[in-house]
Amino acid sequence: MKVIETIQEMTHYTETAKSSGQRIGFVPTMGFLHAGHQQLIETAAEENDIVVVSIFVNPLQFAPGEDYETYPRDLSADKRAAKAAGGSVIFAPSADEMYPRSMSVRVLPAQGTDVLCGRSRPGHFDGVLTVVQKLFHIIDPDTAYFGTKDAQQLALVENMVHDLNSRVRIGRVPTVREADGLAKSSRNENLTIEERKEAPELYQALYTASAQAGVGISAEMIEAAACEHLTTHTRGSVDYVELLTYPELTKDIAPGKTVILAAALKFRHARLIDNLIFTWPDNEGTAQFKA
Amino acid sequence: MKVIETIQEMTHYTETAKSSGQRIGFVPTMGFLHAGHQQLIETAAEENDIVVVSIFVNPLQFAPGEDYETYPRDLSADKRAAKAAGGSVIFAPSADEMYPRSMSVRVLPAQGTDVLCGRSRPGHFDGVLTVVQKLFHIIDPDTAYFGTKDAQQLALVENMVHDLNSRVRIGRVPTVREADGLAKSSRNENLTIEERKEAPELYQALYTASAQAGVGISAEMIEAAACEHLTTHTRGSVDYVELLTYPELTKDIAPGKTVILAAALKFRHARLIDNLIFTWPDNEGTAQFKA
Repeated sequence: MKVIETIQEMTHYTETAKSSGQRIGFVPTMGFLHAGHQQLIETAAEENDIVVVSIFVNPLQFAPGEDYETYPRDLSADKRAAKAAGGSVIFAPSADEMYPRSMSVRVLPAQGTDVLCGRSRPGHFDGVLTVVQKLFHIIDPDTAYFGTKDAQQLALVENMVHDLNSRVRIGRVPTVREADGLAKSSRNENLTIEERKEAPELYQALYTASAQAGVGISAEMIEAAACEHLTTHTRGSVDYVELLTYPELTKDIAPGKTVILAAALKFRHARLIDNLIFTWPDNEGTAQFKA
Repeated sequence: MKVIETIQEMTHYTETAKSSGQRIGFVPTMGFLHAGHQQLIETAAEENDIVVVSIFVNPLQFAPGEDYETYPRDLSADKRAAKAAGGSVIFAPSADEMYPRSMSVRVLPAQGTDVLCGRSRPGHFDGVLTVVQKLFHIIDPDTAYFGTKDAQQLALVENMVHDLNSRVRIGRVPTVREADGLAKSSRNENLTIEERKEAPELYQALYTASAQAGVGISAEMIEAAACEHLTTHTRGSVDYVELLTYPELTKDIAPGKTVILAAALKFRHARLIDNLIFTWPDNEGTAQFKA
């Protein structure tokens, strides 16, 4: 598995591939690849001639005191996982290669950051959008793939691409789940045996609560139902349960609009997130699930 | 002169041109073209096969109360001027075409905005960088041309391109001057006869003051000398005179560094700007002018 470490070589690689008519798929990651990443890579491999997997733990999206230094890294395992899933090349630049000097600009989201995970991580999504825009310019992919599990990140990236007229197409890849419904995540390994048994209740809570959407049921009632399900069926503490429009991430919910019901649940050593995206029912109908 | 009004057609136009190996030069403007713009277009025409001239009065860079509504517009004259200078096509989108909805993101300069013209126009350069990034994505030029007269804008665009790894090359085009040294500008037409006689003193002040740079002379002394020259020789009021590093636009001036001495001078109905870029002398030397 070829690993490219410099921006110059990466740009040259994709320029050469594109000039010979090859389609480039791109999967941005922070490494420590799991089944969810592999699903992204597999989807990219099905739809493109070349798949670039970036592995870059982006300091710009970590606040002081967050786990930038201790974020897990394992390039050897990542090379095997990326290759097995159909990746063509890994782009693994150093922090100095990506940020040789203090950044003179940021790509700043104007909305959709004071909700969900953004509320507890101020500045996080500035760092995400800025590095994603840099990687798009360096790699110049036809399509970049993001998972719907990180729904807020996906929404903000889709909004950025639209509003900055980027030519990159965004591929949405559905959440990969265990047989019992738990969304795959490297953080699942930090659950105790008892917590692991309860963890599928996160998905169950979202599913059961959103199925109640209908005549006379408010967003707040859905949120409360999911929250109660979680406190009743798990020992975790609820970080948030929120129902918002998608991808705008506002409270302007109306019949026929696409909405997201998202939650974060904190266990002892693992904070899990999950979401469901569905159409808010009109006066007669019931919820239609999209992901 | 072909005028393209939609993003889709503009993107298709340059994609087609690039696929046949043609080099694209790009000159972004707000229209009402004068000799300075024509110099940019001529330079672009010399170095490229196709020159796209955008004409877009960008609402995002005007603050409430500024002259967005009354900013002069004359597409017929602009078509003639662009054609005469060697332009190939005009991109003139509507505000709704460029901003079909409220922007979800901004490109925000992290530094260099609280000096020079940015001090009196908060948010102005966010709007400039955001629209420039949009235009770069829509047009995908090989080289984009900016005048050194708008030195702060040029510096911020160069920093953005560097830090976001944009593939667009930036072409710096020297300030075009009248025979008496006055920098060309559409605003010069708003000078009275007496003011027009004094206006060349702006350039003279910068030139005379910066020539004093040398052993034992501080940045503040240069600024004061230029300021005194302006108050002595003109009836205008000095908006600012600043000596900064270039393109960082900081006060960290040191021997051998590239610096800019810039000034803005307000006459009754016209605010004029000008600048000189030169190397701050080392212990023995004198200033070397760059532009």
